[in-house]
Amino acid sequence: MDHSRPDAIPEPAVRRISLYLRQLETFKRKDRKTVSSKQLGESLGLTDAQVRKDLAYFGQFGHPGIGYLVDELISKLRQILGTDKTWNVLLVGAGNLGRALMAYKGFEAKGFKLVAVFDSDKHKVGSRSGPFMIQPLAELANTIQKNNIRVAILAVPAEAAQDVADRLVDAGVRGILNFAPAAINVPESVTVNSVDLAVQMEQITFAVSLASMGKTA
Amino acid sequence: MDHSRPDAIPEPAVRRISLYLRQLETFKRKDRKTVSSKQLGESLGLTDAQVRKDLAYFGQFGHPGIGYLVDELISKLRQILGTDKTWNVLLVGAGNLGRALMAYKGFEAKGFKLVAVFDSDKHKVGSRSGPFMIQPLAELANTIQKNNIRVAILAVPAEAAQDVADRLVDAGVRGILNFAPAAINVPESVTVNSVDLAVQMEQITFAVSLASMGKTA
Repeated sequence: MDHSRPDAIPEPAVRRISLYLRQLETFKRKDRKTVSSKQLGESLGLTDAQVRKDLAYFGQFGHPGIGYLVDELISKLRQILGTDKTWNVLLVGAGNLGRALMAYKGFEAKGFKLVAVFDSDKHKVGSRSGPFMIQPLAELANTIQKNNIRVAILAVPAEAAQDVADRLVDAGVRGILNFAPAAINVPESVTVNSVDLAVQMEQITFAVSLASMGKTA
Repeated sequence: MDHSRPDAIPEPAVRRISLYLRQLETFKRKDRKTVSSKQLGESLGLTDAQVRKDLAYFGQFGHPGIGYLVDELISKLRQILGTDKTWNVLLVGAGNLGRALMAYKGFEAKGFKLVAVFDSDKHKVGSRSGPFMIQPLAELANTIQKNNIRVAILAVPAEAAQDVADRLVDAGVRGILNFAPAAINVPESVTVNSVDLAVQMEQITFAVSLASMGKTA
């Protein structure tokens, strides 16, 4: 992630809030009503102290002698992450990755609703992809304003990323999930989260290399 | 990322090593021969102190009065990340995301070579997808051993993730890039890096929500 400004709450803590939420949703599906910081931590390979410390950035959520109420904590964590409401999201890039993202079932259940898809390719514009009619970039600003869109997903080639990001920001987008393998520059008021798949792979080969040398990774 | 064991070198530092490498490759494409920690940091929104601290975990790479030699530092960082050699990678899951990953141009240039694709769907097995013949899961172990594969990409539905992960680990895989929206449990000797797209989106809505409330994100 490259938040472009200093952060009072550490990034890894915010990331773990998402993981706690995911785990609590799993507990809820199993009809579990309460959970302790130890149980929540263990399910994610974390200590109970880490769980309590992360949650303490945002408030006091435990109940003495009970632990956390699963439903209540899910609701609080969604508030923290801003997903207690639904976010209209747009996607730029209707290539392979874009199509995978359109078909991705995981978004809507988590509070994200893909409402529009754009591409610069004239051969794609006007065609349908699932429920979406691919729109030209010229309609970006209009669609963003009409649907009150604040977050966008960028699944375009590296060389197009900065130009599209500039257009998104100009039109009012404040958060970008960037899949293009390129760094993009945005004003300080805009958040970019870059998912560079090669970076993700390198984190793995780093650990596997170290482990195969007999060191601790 | 959920490394399942304690780590002497902080995870964010390892992640930044990847970002430094990416930026140095950009400098190299622009025929730049040397770079200072300040210049490298500025290009990524980091301080020069952070750059020097991260690199110091791995050695002493600067030259007094010159800074870093771009070619030399690229070579050193690739060694650190294990990508000075090519890794054979396999993919399980030939759905939308799997197809996007097969078409992803960013892997090979970074030292990852996709060599085999698997799916449990009998209708997909035996069909071609680009240069790949989709193989059945029954051939996993054989292919892993024959191609000396240590890292795998998991692009299967959540409910299949743990079973496939178990098979991969049994067959000798030591690192898994997991795109399934589910936590998977692996032995301590195996590294899992989970890319949960909803988690990535939540990090953005967290920041956008905070910013819109006028606080610092």
